[in-house]
Amino acid sequence: MINFLKRYLPILEWGAQYNRTTLVSDLIVGVIVTMMLIPQSLAYAQLAGLPPEVGLYASIAPLILYAIFGTSRTLAVGPVAVASLMTAAAVSQVAKQGTPEYLGAAIALAIISGLLLIVMGILKLGFLANFLSHPVVAGFITASGVQIAAGQLSPLLGIHSEGETLKDIVISLGQNIMNINLLTAIIGIGSVVFLFLIKCSLKNFLLRIGLSPRISDLLAKAGPVAALIITTVVVGGFGLDNSGVKIVGEVPKGLPSVALPPVDFNLWIKLIVPALLISIVGYVESISVALTFAAKKRQRVDPDQELIALGASNLGAGISGGFPVTGGLSRTVVNYDAGAETPAAGIFTAVGIGLTTLFLTPLLFFLPKATLGAVIIVAVISLVDIKALKYTFNYSKADYAAMLTTIVVTWIAGIEVGLVLGVALSISLHLYSSSRPHIAIVGQIPGTAHFRNVKRHNVVTYSEILSMRIDESLYFPNARFIEDKINAEVAANLEIKHVILECPAVNAIDISALESLEAINLRLKDGGITFHLSEVKGPIMDRLKKSHFLEKLTGKVHLTHYDAVSSINPELAQKTKNINKLSN
Amino acid sequence: MINFLKRYLPILEWGAQYNRTTLVSDLIVGVIVTMMLIPQSLAYAQLAGLPPEVGLYASIAPLILYAIFGTSRTLAVGPVAVASLMTAAAVSQVAKQGTPEYLGAAIALAIISGLLLIVMGILKLGFLANFLSHPVVAGFITASGVQIAAGQLSPLLGIHSEGETLKDIVISLGQNIMNINLLTAIIGIGSVVFLFLIKCSLKNFLLRIGLSPRISDLLAKAGPVAALIITTVVVGGFGLDNSGVKIVGEVPKGLPSVALPPVDFNLWIKLIVPALLISIVGYVESISVALTFAAKKRQRVDPDQELIALGASNLGAGISGGFPVTGGLSRTVVNYDAGAETPAAGIFTAVGIGLTTLFLTPLLFFLPKATLGAVIIVAVISLVDIKALKYTFNYSKADYAAMLTTIVVTWIAGIEVGLVLGVALSISLHLYSSSRPHIAIVGQIPGTAHFRNVKRHNVVTYSEILSMRIDESLYFPNARFIEDKINAEVAANLEIKHVILECPAVNAIDISALESLEAINLRLKDGGITFHLSEVKGPIMDRLKKSHFLEKLTGKVHLTHYDAVSSINPELAQKTKNINKLSN
Repeated sequence: MINFLKRYLPILEWGAQYNRTTLVSDLIVGVIVTMMLIPQSLAYAQLAGLPPEVGLYASIAPLILYAIFGTSRTLAVGPVAVASLMTAAAVSQVAKQGTPEYLGAAIALAIISGLLLIVMGILKLGFLANFLSHPVVAGFITASGVQIAAGQLSPLLGIHSEGETLKDIVISLGQNIMNINLLTAIIGIGSVVFLFLIKCSLKNFLLRIGLSPRISDLLAKAGPVAALIITTVVVGGFGLDNSGVKIVGEVPKGLPSVALPPVDFNLWIKLIVPALLISIVGYVESISVALTFAAKKRQRVDPDQELIALGASNLGAGISGGFPVTGGLSRTVVNYDAGAETPAAGIFTAVGIGLTTLFLTPLLFFLPKATLGAVIIVAVISLVDIKALKYTFNYSKADYAAMLTTIVVTWIAGIEVGLVLGVALSISLHLYSSSRPHIAIVGQIPGTAHFRNVKRHNVVTYSEILSMRIDESLYFPNARFIEDKINAEVAANLEIKHVILECPAVNAIDISALESLEAINLRLKDGGITFHLSEVKGPIMDRLKKSHFLEKLTGKVHLTHYDAVSSINPELAQKTKNINKLSN
Repeated sequence: MINFLKRYLPILEWGAQYNRTTLVSDLIVGVIVTMMLIPQSLAYAQLAGLPPEVGLYASIAPLILYAIFGTSRTLAVGPVAVASLMTAAAVSQVAKQGTPEYLGAAIALAIISGLLLIVMGILKLGFLANFLSHPVVAGFITASGVQIAAGQLSPLLGIHSEGETLKDIVISLGQNIMNINLLTAIIGIGSVVFLFLIKCSLKNFLLRIGLSPRISDLLAKAGPVAALIITTVVVGGFGLDNSGVKIVGEVPKGLPSVALPPVDFNLWIKLIVPALLISIVGYVESISVALTFAAKKRQRVDPDQELIALGASNLGAGISGGFPVTGGLSRTVVNYDAGAETPAAGIFTAVGIGLTTLFLTPLLFFLPKATLGAVIIVAVISLVDIKALKYTFNYSKADYAAMLTTIVVTWIAGIEVGLVLGVALSISLHLYSSSRPHIAIVGQIPGTAHFRNVKRHNVVTYSEILSMRIDESLYFPNARFIEDKINAEVAANLEIKHVILECPAVNAIDISALESLEAINLRLKDGGITFHLSEVKGPIMDRLKKSHFLEKLTGKVHLTHYDAVSSINPELAQKTKNINKLSN
C-alpha cells in the first residue's frame, strides 16, 4: 500500500527526508524564482491572447500539484511559449479574443488536456509521444518560434495584425506597417535591445567586477524584471498611455477562485484534438527537460508518472482559471540555477506568485504591452534553430524532408496541420525505407567462415548457390519486395540450385513475411531449387516452430551461413567460379 | 529504343518468337476458355449490380490490352468477385442500381482505376500494395466471400434484400424470408448442389471411367456452363418466368461501342478513394496470382509493368462500357490448365467472347438469375478461409488482431472502412512493437569472445560495465525508450562506470535516435560514465561519420563487443562479480 502510494505520490518519498537546511535553501529559491516568473507568466498570457492575471493563475496550482505528483526534483511547470501559441490557435477557432467565451475555452482546454494526460498516464501511453520524431519537434519549435516573434511585432510596434498562420500575420503586418505608434515602438525596440544586452553581456560584466558566478547569473536572468519596472515607471510617470501606448491596465486583485466550469459538450468535442496535440507536445518538451536535469544528478524520472503529474497540473490550472501549462526549459533553468533541491521550492514559488496576485497587481497597471512583447521575442529567439536544419540535411535526407515539411506547413496552413503532417510524413518515410531493405548478395572471404557483400569485398561465390543477407526485419511492407528480389535473381541465373537467406539482422518475422517465405519456398520448389535459412535468432526460431514453415521448407535452417554453404557443397573451395574484386 | 519499347510492350518480346505450333495450341485454349468465362462474366456483372452484357464487355478489351502490356504469360484479366463487390459498394453510394447513372458510375470507376494504376506504374508506386498486409488481405477476402454469398441468397431464393454491409443484408434477408419464391429456390439450390457435386466428384468419376486427366479436369470446370444450359432450357421450356422466376431477359446484341464517357468532375471526386482501393486490392490479387504462375515456369513478372498493364486493361474496360477488372485466380487457373502458352490465348478468348456478344446473346434470354447466384456462391465459398484465422492466431496475436478487425469492421461498417482500418491497425501495431524493442543485458560466455543474454545463458558480467544489445533499428518510435532503459539501469546501479551498446542488429539510426544517443552520451558524461558502441554495421558507421556524435562520444566504437569489454577492463576474467545461471 505504501509502495503504491509512493509510486503515485512521489512527495511521500522526498517529503520524508525533508529537513531544516533544505527548507531554508528552498525558501530562498522560491523568492528568486517568483520574481523571475512574473514577467514570463504575464507575457505568455498575452501570447495566448488572455488577460495577464490568467498567466499568474496558471503559475500557482500547477506548481503545487507537480510538487505532489511529479518525479523530477527540478522541473518547473507553468505557461510556456509553444503551448501558449497552440492555445491561442485552438481557442481562436471557437471564440473571439477578449470575450468571456475565449477565456472559458482556454480553461476548458487546460481541463481536457489534464484529463487526457491523466488517462494516458494510467494506460501507460507515454510511448505515443515517441511518434513525434526529433526532426518534427525541432521543425515545429523553430516554426513556432518564428511565428511567435512575428506575432509579437504587433504589440511591440503598436500596430494591428491578425491571423493564425505566419503567412497571414506577415500579410497583415505588411498592410498595417504605416500605422506604427512611434512611442510604443521606442519602448518595444528599446526593451528588446536592453534584454539582449543583459542576456549576452551582463553576466560577464558582473563576473569581471568581482561578483560570484551564481549571483552574476541570477542578476543577468533578472533582466526581464528590470525591463518591466523601468518601462512601467516611464509610461506611468509621463502618462504615455494617453499617447497611444497600450498598457496592461487594471488587473483583478486576489487569488483565483477555484471552480469547475460548466461542461459544454459541443465545445469539448471541438477542443479534443487540439488538447491532445498540446498534451503530447507539452509532454515531449517536459520529459526532455526532466530527463536532462535528472541525469545531471543521476536521479530517476518515471515517464508514465510524469504524464499523471502534468495531467494533474493542467487540471489544476483549468480549475483555478488558468490555461494549459507544461514543464518549460527556461523556468526549469531558473529553478536549477537558483539551487532548488526539492519540489518544495516550487510550492514556495507558488506561494510567492499567490502573494503577487493578492497585493502587487496594482503595480502592473502602467506596464506597457510592448515590454511583454519584447520579453517574448527575446525568449523565443533561442527556439529558432537553423543549425539543426543543416545538421539534419547532412545526416539524413528523409529526416530533413520531415523537418522542412513541418516548418513550411506550420507557417502556411497552421500549427496543428504542420504537426500532424510532419508526424504522418515521418511514419511514411520510415515505412517506405523499411519496405526496401538493404539486401546484399554475399560470398565467402577465402580461407575464413565469414561471408560478406560481394560488392564490398573480395569473396568467393558458387554458381549454383545464391547467398543473400537481409538487413531488416521481415514484415508486411517488405515481404513482397523480398519475393520479387529472389524471383528476379533466380529468373536471371538459371544455374542456381540453392537459395540461402542469411538472417542475423532479422529481428522479427510477421505472418505476412512468413507467408512470403512459404510462397518463396513453394515457387523455388516448383523450379527445382532448395531454400535454406541461416543465422536465425532464437526468438524467431521459437515462433517459426509454431508455423508449418519448417516442415515444408525444402532445405534446412543452419546455425551459421558457413554451415549452410558447406552442407550444400562439401567440396566448397573447389568449384570456385568467380572472384569479385571491387575497390569499395 | 527497342529495349525501351520491349520494356513497356512485352508483346514485342513473345510476339517475335510466335510460330504456328503455338498458334494452334493458343487457338484451342481460346475456345475452351471462352466457354468457361461466359458464366463467370455474367455472374460478376450481376454481383456488381450491372446488366449481364457489361460483364461480357469487361472480358474483351482488357484481355487484349493485358496481352499487349502484361509481363505474365498466363494471367487472365477480367471481372472478379471481390472487385465486383467493391464496385457495387462504391457505385451504389452515388447512384441507384438499375439507372443509367449507376452504369455510368461503374464505367467511370473503371476509367479512374485505370488511370490511377497507370500513374502508379509510371511512378513505380507498386510498393504501396505492400501495405496491405497478408492478414488484412486474407481477412478482407474472407469477409467479402461471406458477404457476397449472403448477398446472392436474394436471387438464389427469389426474395428481396438490400444493404451494403453483411449486417444490413442479413437483417434484410431475415425480414423478407417469408416471401421466398419456391420455383426460384428449387432452381437456385438445385444449381448449387449440382455445381458442388461437379466440383468435388466429377473429375474423379471421369478419371475412373478412363478419361485423360486433362480432359477430366476441363470437363469438371465446365460445370457452370452445363448449369446455365440446363436451367435456361428448363425455364424457357416450361415458361417458369411467368411463375415468378427472374430471368436475365433481353441482352443487347453486338460488340460494345467504344467511347470516352463525359467526365463529370464531381462524380470523379467521389469515386477516387473507392477507385484507389479497388486498384490496390485488385493489384495485390493479380500480382500474387501472376507471381505464383510465373514461378512454375521460372518466368519473370515485373511488378511495376504489371501496374501499367492492369491500368491499360481497366482503361480499356471503361472505354468499352465495362467495369473494373483485374487478374483473377479462377480464370487464370482455367487458362493455365487449358494449356495457354502465350498471352495470345487471351486475345483469342477475347475474340470468342466478342463473337458471343455478336451472335449468342438471344440464348441468354431465359437464363435464370438464380443460376448466376449459384455460380457466384459456389465460386466464392473457396475465398472463405477459416483455417487462416486459426493459423494466424497461433503465430502472432498482433497479426490476428489486424485480421479479425478487418473482418468484423468489413461486415459491420462496410468494405472500404474495413480495409482502411485494417491497414491502419497493421501499421500501428508494427510501430508499437518496434517502439518497444527487445533489449538484452549481455554477459560473456566464460572462455569465449561471445556475449549472450544474461537471462538465457550462463555468463560473466562486471559490476562497472553495463553491456546491452538492442535487437531493432534505432529510430524515432524507440529512441526515447532506449534513453529511458539506459537511464533506469544506470540510476538503479550506482557502480556502473561504462555503458556499451552492442549493435549487430541495428540496421538504421535516424536523426531522432542519433540525438537520443547524443543525449545519452551527454547525460552519462554528467554522471561520470563513459559510453561505447560495438559491432556497428558499415553503412551506419558511414552515416555516423557525417554527424558530430563520434567526436563527442566519451568512449569509442569497437569492432566487437569483446574488444569493447577487454579494452575497458584488461584484467577481464579477474573482477568477475556475478555468474548468472538461469534455466531458460
